[in-house]
Amino acid sequence: MHIHLYRSSLWSKGLQVFPVVSTCPLTTSILRRTFTTTRQQYKAVPPKPKMSTDATTLKGQPLDKAAFDALMRRRMFFTPSFEIYGGVSGLFDLGPPGAALQSNLIDTWKKHFIIEENMLEVDCTVLTPHVVLKTSGHVDKFADWMCKDPKTGDILRADHFVEDVLESRLKGDKEARGLETQATAQDKDPKRAKKKGKGEVAVKLDDALVQEYEEVLAKIDNYDGDQLGELIKKYDLKNPKSGLQPSPPVAFNLMFQTSIGPSSNVPSYLRPETAQGQFMNFAKLLEYNMGQMPFASASIGKSYRNEISPRAGLLRVREFLMAEIEHFVDPKGGKKHPRFHEVEHIELPLLDGPTQLAGQTTVKKIAIGKAVQEGIVNNETIGYFLARISLFVEKIGIDMTKIRFRQHMANEMAHYASDCYDLEVKCSAGWVECVGCADRSAYDLAVHTKQTGKPLVVREQLETPEIITSWEVDIDKKKFGPFFKKNAKLVESALEATTQDHREQIAKALTDTGKFSLDVPEMGKVEVGIDLVKVEQKTRTENIREYTPNVIEPSFGIGRLLFALCEHNYWTRAEEGGEETRGVLSFPPAMAPTKVLIVPLSSNDKFVPFINELSRKLRAAGVSCRVDNSSASIGKRYARNDELGTALAVTVDFQTLQDNTITLRDRDSTRQVRADEDKVVAAIQAVVNGAQTWEDVEKSLPVFTQQES
Amino acid sequence: MHIHLYRSSLWSKGLQVFPVVSTCPLTTSILRRTFTTTRQQYKAVPPKPKMSTDATTLKGQPLDKAAFDALMRRRMFFTPSFEIYGGVSGLFDLGPPGAALQSNLIDTWKKHFIIEENMLEVDCTVLTPHVVLKTSGHVDKFADWMCKDPKTGDILRADHFVEDVLESRLKGDKEARGLETQATAQDKDPKRAKKKGKGEVAVKLDDALVQEYEEVLAKIDNYDGDQLGELIKKYDLKNPKSGLQPSPPVAFNLMFQTSIGPSSNVPSYLRPETAQGQFMNFAKLLEYNMGQMPFASASIGKSYRNEISPRAGLLRVREFLMAEIEHFVDPKGGKKHPRFHEVEHIELPLLDGPTQLAGQTTVKKIAIGKAVQEGIVNNETIGYFLARISLFVEKIGIDMTKIRFRQHMANEMAHYASDCYDLEVKCSAGWVECVGCADRSAYDLAVHTKQTGKPLVVREQLETPEIITSWEVDIDKKKFGPFFKKNAKLVESALEATTQDHREQIAKALTDTGKFSLDVPEMGKVEVGIDLVKVEQKTRTENIREYTPNVIEPSFGIGRLLFALCEHNYWTRAEEGGEETRGVLSFPPAMAPTKVLIVPLSSNDKFVPFINELSRKLRAAGVSCRVDNSSASIGKRYARNDELGTALAVTVDFQTLQDNTITLRDRDSTRQVRADEDKVVAAIQAVVNGAQTWEDVEKSLPVFTQQES
Repeated sequence: MHIHLYRSSLWSKGLQVFPVVSTCPLTTSILRRTFTTTRQQYKAVPPKPKMSTDATTLKGQPLDKAAFDALMRRRMFFTPSFEIYGGVSGLFDLGPPGAALQSNLIDTWKKHFIIEENMLEVDCTVLTPHVVLKTSGHVDKFADWMCKDPKTGDILRADHFVEDVLESRLKGDKEARGLETQATAQDKDPKRAKKKGKGEVAVKLDDALVQEYEEVLAKIDNYDGDQLGELIKKYDLKNPKSGLQPSPPVAFNLMFQTSIGPSSNVPSYLRPETAQGQFMNFAKLLEYNMGQMPFASASIGKSYRNEISPRAGLLRVREFLMAEIEHFVDPKGGKKHPRFHEVEHIELPLLDGPTQLAGQTTVKKIAIGKAVQEGIVNNETIGYFLARISLFVEKIGIDMTKIRFRQHMANEMAHYASDCYDLEVKCSAGWVECVGCADRSAYDLAVHTKQTGKPLVVREQLETPEIITSWEVDIDKKKFGPFFKKNAKLVESALEATTQDHREQIAKALTDTGKFSLDVPEMGKVEVGIDLVKVEQKTRTENIREYTPNVIEPSFGIGRLLFALCEHNYWTRAEEGGEETRGVLSFPPAMAPTKVLIVPLSSNDKFVPFINELSRKLRAAGVSCRVDNSSASIGKRYARNDELGTALAVTVDFQTLQDNTITLRDRDSTRQVRADEDKVVAAIQAVVNGAQTWEDVEKSLPVFTQQES
Repeated sequence: MHIHLYRSSLWSKGLQVFPVVSTCPLTTSILRRTFTTTRQQYKAVPPKPKMSTDATTLKGQPLDKAAFDALMRRRMFFTPSFEIYGGVSGLFDLGPPGAALQSNLIDTWKKHFIIEENMLEVDCTVLTPHVVLKTSGHVDKFADWMCKDPKTGDILRADHFVEDVLESRLKGDKEARGLETQATAQDKDPKRAKKKGKGEVAVKLDDALVQEYEEVLAKIDNYDGDQLGELIKKYDLKNPKSGLQPSPPVAFNLMFQTSIGPSSNVPSYLRPETAQGQFMNFAKLLEYNMGQMPFASASIGKSYRNEISPRAGLLRVREFLMAEIEHFVDPKGGKKHPRFHEVEHIELPLLDGPTQLAGQTTVKKIAIGKAVQEGIVNNETIGYFLARISLFVEKIGIDMTKIRFRQHMANEMAHYASDCYDLEVKCSAGWVECVGCADRSAYDLAVHTKQTGKPLVVREQLETPEIITSWEVDIDKKKFGPFFKKNAKLVESALEATTQDHREQIAKALTDTGKFSLDVPEMGKVEVGIDLVKVEQKTRTENIREYTPNVIEPSFGIGRLLFALCEHNYWTRAEEGGEETRGVLSFPPAMAPTKVLIVPLSSNDKFVPFINELSRKLRAAGVSCRVDNSSASIGKRYARNDELGTALAVTVDFQTLQDNTITLRDRDSTRQVRADEDKVVAAIQAVVNGAQTWEDVEKSLPVFTQQES
């Protein structure tokens, strides 16, 4: 999974970091990652908003973030973990509607990807031994920079600290200049806004310094530890809590450590992505797939990252659910996909790398077939998955006017990747990366093969055998060993490492002089005679082609999609006759946490048998339902379930007991029909399965009008 | 979850441990837990078999365990994790058929429990801070005893070590006496058998010593660390690898430790059960449920236990999936269940505590209604869940002739439990505990309330208000504070802690003498005057009853159920005309990892469009299918899928291209029908949904006979 990897500050190491600017101003800071370009690409310093100020509801109303958040908590979509013990930042539990929504989302994901594409699902362990993640590069590179307050001992994430103090000074400057900052502050997380204000006074800054600060903020993700340390010194940045400069930044690995077995005999981590487990099983999966390529494995499970100080609610958590696909493909032949023709007409909103390098964020709406043809998307397999991802998020109910596929720029990618597009979803937090689709090339399989000596390769029977001519080294081991004694291994390794060209020269030297001279590491020049080693040109026929497959990885952050889904489907409507507005979550019926609310007119016992039987029928039809026989008014009970996103409501009244008719209410329009129980149950099934819309229901069943009270 | 808790040797601490015997000889050692009875209950010392020697297949054939295990691995139902790196014991991955089976099992579980019973599903974090598990008792009690070899540094689980060495000596004794031991050895895990033999020679023992050893082995689970240490000294037990006595046993906590945030600021564990997360959310869930009792929460997720040296394959792993229900019920009124009448007629095979105390293992088949009436099962709620558990395991395909519900004996239960029945399933490993159903009483909610001060209670509106008369302490704070100064808090606490009786005495003393004397902790006797404190009898009307609910916890070990499911549905049949037998996994169609195999007669391109269209139709109908267009014979392709448990197979041949008919083959009978594609697709749907059996299909579609080749 690359989603969460990238933003680790050390992950795209080894690239020039200094004179850089984020060219993607609308990408939220939560998700920004190491942008690394050269000074030539320096374009401008656009302000980087923390929070989108133009977020809207499903109906285009300005989003009241506080009201939305309150609904999420009140209805227990999610809740801070261990709250009775004060909570732990970065850990959240899903309550009943959140868990049901997640369950429906995963179910849809499995059908859309695993079943539809015959992917090989695996369920691998979260506990992962050190050696595996050392080999994959996570032990060395999966880290952020942190520094420490010398007095309070507070641990600060270095980039966040620099950002906070500079922003606070800029805010003070604005205040000193008499410019308004209240509105801006309101749009931000109130906790952060409060923190920033603390200990800072409104001081006017030099115009030049203001510009410097803004430039630093624009490229905050691009500094390494030393550079962040320099900024802290240069601007004398102090922790508002202590009034002191924190220590120089050090790397902090983001993986949770533990050890397996007693006496720490297997140092281990909680996996930071599910991908490695799939790579571990590559050879067995290939065999399970009867050697056929291409194929994909898939996995749904939790991953972990020990954030230094998480502060973005559900968008940056320490324990999260991922759904990852590893599609293994032959690197030869342009990475075509056999089903690409099925999707090539689908238009996607693309924001490609060159556009971003030009300082633009203009999205191009383009058919994926054309995008691949024009090279905007590297190959058919990535293109195929981008289209499939788009179809998926549409199916679950993401607002398609609020998505874009943003390409990573060449030097923004992780060390293993050769191309990458992210599905970004516009939320109140800005553009949030929810799905990544990276070409991991042969990186992972190759490093694990090298480390373990177990070939994670495909052996393909060639239709036409290949005839290969090459210079081969032939060592007379009986003489070679005794001659070089303990150095024999070193010399043999040096010989094996020679190139074809070099071997040709050696062969010539042997023919001419009966000996040759060789540079051997740790030994220097060594003379070798023809009695020990022969080098000859040989011809062989290859019936098998062996190659390490490349991996295209669509990787889904389930929690982020859940959050986006809630925000995109949220809107408010005025209470009938009242002044208050009520929240509604208009999930597609298939995604709704509960499908049907059953409301008896009153808590009269006479309704109970009918309600029990109706519940039984609905459950037997696979439709989840809940009964609300509380004493609240019917209107209040409806309103509660509109907030829960319950798709439909059935009301049972005294007439029901006479003629077996019930009313069916649509959450989104609040319109109702009334008909015989069996007809209504059939209509419910049709709506839940997606066979009918509410409009269809109104055409076939009599509309019922009655005030909600 | 108590399943995995119990067997931790320290868990049921504080009970008399010494003179005990397992009265349940058929329960496998994998699952034995701390039996703690008194000497009076000592009955006999039956041999405790490690592995059932009478395991059978679905068709009653003797089970060839090696062949079954080979199938599981060959078809990638599961596979050791990180095998290319040498593996880590106690960690397994599920391959495609295992993952699909698990997915179907969970799906069925959710429908059977969560949807059917309107349970409140939550998804809580695995990471759990220290304080939570300290409060729940896991930090202190969730441990095993381990000792260390002074030379090799090997860590040994103390009870296993004693067991291994004594068994090895008994084996040597038998050999020396010329008694056969080969057959016994074969029935056991080959790895362990090999290990046991090593370093031991065939030495004849005194008859008395043989009996002593056997007695020790029979009660091996009952010794605490000191007692195990005494056994090691007394019998001079040596590690075969070093020839040395290991160190005295020390407690090893079985939770994986980690820490959240940088600089270890929140020491934490990976949860050992999902239950605690549900308890954390009790107050919010009660509110979500609009205050109504009883209700149940449910959770499916991974839990962890750091086994010292896991050695029972899939039955004892370090990372495992659980499904747990916490049913919250009023302790008053006998814990009735509103839906008990729906299940009271269901007969269950019960092995109750008294029967076991009498040294018997006879199972009583009895209607659950009667069992509750007779007090064999403590209350309706436990009874209801036992019946529902039985219906569930029947639905997923557990062999109902191989189950029993075994009651925990009074002193076998964990410290929090007041009653417990386990669903035990007979496998090749003996009776394996797969589901537990415990009455955790008010233990967890009460300790968390005490620790946090957050009331995890139900406040019930009383229909008839209760009039309560009590002695109340009335402190004159204005005078009290200045008088006692810094000790005021201490005195106040002591006053608050006084009982009603004590207060009555104080009131009398105040009336009589105008003062009283009070024992205050940390201060000793303190004299208090009537000017500071008054104690008077007051009467108040209570409209609210406040109580801590009790918890009934059905807890499912998903991995164990999966394993049992595979073993119970396994059988072999002779290859037609051949001598070899082939494995078949006869899962119920709804559980089958793949529902339909599509087999083209050959790899001829002509079949491709038809096959693609058929796959599309099946997927659209929600039926998972796979195409096998390999060059293997049709018979071989069928055989492979019989091993995978694929329920049905469709063959496409040249006739199909002419008349659109296909054959449909039943995995279990290998019989076939042939009909028009649409009719076959409808039949497939009916079988998969459980609407029809294969016999029904044969009645409606023409039978087709053709040799499998």
